[in-house]
Amino acid sequence: MNRCLVLQSEVQSFIEKCMVAAGAKPSHAKSLADVLVEGDCRGHYSHGLNRMDMYVKDIQTEICSKDGEPIIEKESVATALVNGENVLGPVVGNFCMDLAIKKAKDVGIGWVVAKGSNHYGIAGYYAMQALKQDMIGMSYTNTSPLVVPTRARDCTLGTNPISVAAPANDGDSFVLDMATSAVALGKVELHHRSGDTIPEGWGCDSHGKPSTDPAKVLSGGGLLPIGGCEATGGYKGFGLGMMVEVFCGILAGSHYSKHIRTWKVTDSVANLGQCFVAINPENFAPGFKDRMSDLLTLHRDLEPAEPGTPVMVPGDPERINIKRCKELGGLSYHINVINHMNKVAKTLGVTPELPVNRLLA
Amino acid sequence: MNRCLVLQSEVQSFIEKCMVAAGAKPSHAKSLADVLVEGDCRGHYSHGLNRMDMYVKDIQTEICSKDGEPIIEKESVATALVNGENVLGPVVGNFCMDLAIKKAKDVGIGWVVAKGSNHYGIAGYYAMQALKQDMIGMSYTNTSPLVVPTRARDCTLGTNPISVAAPANDGDSFVLDMATSAVALGKVELHHRSGDTIPEGWGCDSHGKPSTDPAKVLSGGGLLPIGGCEATGGYKGFGLGMMVEVFCGILAGSHYSKHIRTWKVTDSVANLGQCFVAINPENFAPGFKDRMSDLLTLHRDLEPAEPGTPVMVPGDPERINIKRCKELGGLSYHINVINHMNKVAKTLGVTPELPVNRLLA
Repeated sequence: MNRCLVLQSEVQSFIEKCMVAAGAKPSHAKSLADVLVEGDCRGHYSHGLNRMDMYVKDIQTEICSKDGEPIIEKESVATALVNGENVLGPVVGNFCMDLAIKKAKDVGIGWVVAKGSNHYGIAGYYAMQALKQDMIGMSYTNTSPLVVPTRARDCTLGTNPISVAAPANDGDSFVLDMATSAVALGKVELHHRSGDTIPEGWGCDSHGKPSTDPAKVLSGGGLLPIGGCEATGGYKGFGLGMMVEVFCGILAGSHYSKHIRTWKVTDSVANLGQCFVAINPENFAPGFKDRMSDLLTLHRDLEPAEPGTPVMVPGDPERINIKRCKELGGLSYHINVINHMNKVAKTLGVTPELPVNRLLA
Repeated sequence: MNRCLVLQSEVQSFIEKCMVAAGAKPSHAKSLADVLVEGDCRGHYSHGLNRMDMYVKDIQTEICSKDGEPIIEKESVATALVNGENVLGPVVGNFCMDLAIKKAKDVGIGWVVAKGSNHYGIAGYYAMQALKQDMIGMSYTNTSPLVVPTRARDCTLGTNPISVAAPANDGDSFVLDMATSAVALGKVELHHRSGDTIPEGWGCDSHGKPSTDPAKVLSGGGLLPIGGCEATGGYKGFGLGMMVEVFCGILAGSHYSKHIRTWKVTDSVANLGQCFVAINPENFAPGFKDRMSDLLTLHRDLEPAEPGTPVMVPGDPERINIKRCKELGGLSYHINVINHMNKVAKTLGVTPELPVNRLLA
C-alpha cells in the first residue's frame, strides 16, 4: 500500500512550522494549516498537505505577502468589498466569512466579496463556518484558466468552485463543494499516471474536440464544464463557471477569466476574486433545520438502483472519509507525499519531520 | 411548416382575456401574459402560450386563488419572507423581485423567499428585472419531482431552475436560465413524439438505469441531473438541484422535494417555494459593467472548435430568437398550438381568437 499514518496534530504543526520557517506570520500559518488539514480529513487530498510546497514557495518568493491583513474597502450592513492585500488565501477567506456571518446575524444576510486574494484551499471550509452559527454558508472563488467553454478550444475559466453548506438537526448538514468543471484536474492527472483512458465528457484536446486521452487533455487541451459536451448540456456547466466569475472577479474588480495567471506559473501576483455569503434561516420560516433533516433523510433512505451503492447527499462522501480517519486514528498519506514534504522541511530547517514509521497494511 | 405568425400584442391580449374570462383579476392576468409572451420571445416555447391552458385550469378549478395579493410575513432591511397567498406565480414573482430590488438599492442586496406560490413561467424573467436597475438578479423555484438523484430510482427533485442575470454596457447582459436537470422534460417528449432515441445522460428508466429510450424515461423513469450518470459527474447536478431546494422550499417553509404534488396532477394546492435576489454592483468595485462586457466579449470572440458554430454566452441563444421574432414581425407557433388555444378560448367565450391566416413558409 505504501501509505503511512500521520496524526492530525502532527500534520497541523508540521505545516505551521514549515510556513513560519518560510516567512509567514504564525497566525497566517495556522489559518493555512487548518484548511489544508480539513481538506485531507474530508478526502480532498489534492487540496491538503499535498499542496503545501506551493504555499511555501508563494511566501518564499514573496509573490504572496508575508505581512499585512485584509481590509474592508466598502461596506453596508449587508455587504462588503474586502481587499485581501495579497496575503494567504485562508486568511482572506476567514476574514470575509467572519464578516459575512456577523452581517447575517444583524440583518439576515452577509454578502462579502474579496479582491487581492490567493488560493484558499477547499471552498467548503469557509461555507461550513456558517454551520457553527446555524446558518447557511456559501463560498466561491475564481482560479487559473483550465476549462474550455462549450464550442471553444482555449481555456478561459478556472474550475471555479461552488460551495453551499446548510445545517440540519443533531450536527447533520448539507455540504455541496464542487468544481464547475466535469472533474478536477487531479483526476485527469491520476488517470494519465496510471495509463488509463478517461470517460467521455471530462476533457478535450487542443482543437476543442472531446477526448478520452488524458495526455491530450493535459497538453494544450482542457477540462470540460459539468455536463461535458454541448449535446449533454455542457453549456450549463459553462454558464455556472461564468456565474462564479461574476460573483468573484467581476464584482470584486480582481483578475478574472483568462486574465488570471496560468496554472502553476507563479511569477506574478494571483489577485484572485472570491465571494463569501452567510444567510440566517431565522429571518425566514421557522423549522429550517427540521425540514433540512427531512430532505437529507428522505434522500438517504431512497432505494438504490444498484444494491449496495446507497444514495448519498452532498457531504456524505466526506463524512465517510472523516469517519475512516477517526477509526485509523489519523490521516493516511502516500509515502512519496510524506518524503517530498520532508525534503521541503529539511531545506527550511524544520524539525521534527513527518513520521514515516506507521505504515498501513 | 405548419407554423403561423401571431403579433406579440395579439398573444398578450389573447392570454389576458382568457385568464380574465377564467376568473383571474385583470392585473394578475396581465402579469401572467407578460411572462408567457417573454418566454415565447426568448424561444422557451414550453414556458409560453403552450402552457396557458394549465393556468386557465388552475384558476377555473380555484386550485390557484383568483383573488388576494402576496404579503410580507417577516422582513429585515436585506431579507423578506413572503406568503404568496396561492395567487398566480408571476404575481408572487413580481412582488418578490420588486422587493428584492428595493432592498438592494438600500443596503446592496435583497434576498426574498416566497412560500404559497405557483408556477411562475421562465425563471429568467424575474432575474432580468434587476438588469433595468443595473443590478444582478437571481431567481430560483422548486417544482414537481421529475429528476432521479444519482444512484436512486425514484424522482425526488424538480427540474429546479437557476437563473442569474448581470448587466453589461450598452444593454448587453449575461442571462443564465437553466434547469438543474440535464435537459427539460419537453425535450424528451419531443424525441418520443418523433420516434428518436435520446442521447445518453438525459434520463433513466424505472430501475434507475440510464436509458436512451424516451418512452422508458417518460413512463416510470425520470430525468437525470446535469452531468448525467455518476461517472460523468451527475452528482454535481443532483447537488445543485438540492441547493435550489434549500433556497426555496427549505428556507420558505413551503412544500419541497417529493412532498410537492405530482407533475400535471393539480388536485391539490402547489404551495411552491421560490427565491428572488438582487445585488447592487455599486456596493462593490467600480467598473462592474466594463468588466462584464469584457467577459462576454472575450468569450464571444474565441476561435470556435467547429468553424461556423460560434461560442455563445448565456443569453445569446435567446437574443438570436428575439432578433428572429423582430425580423418576422411577431411570434411563430405551430398551428396545432394555436388551434388548441383557440378551442380553450371558445369554451371561455373569448373573442377574437388567435389568427391562423399568417402561415409561414
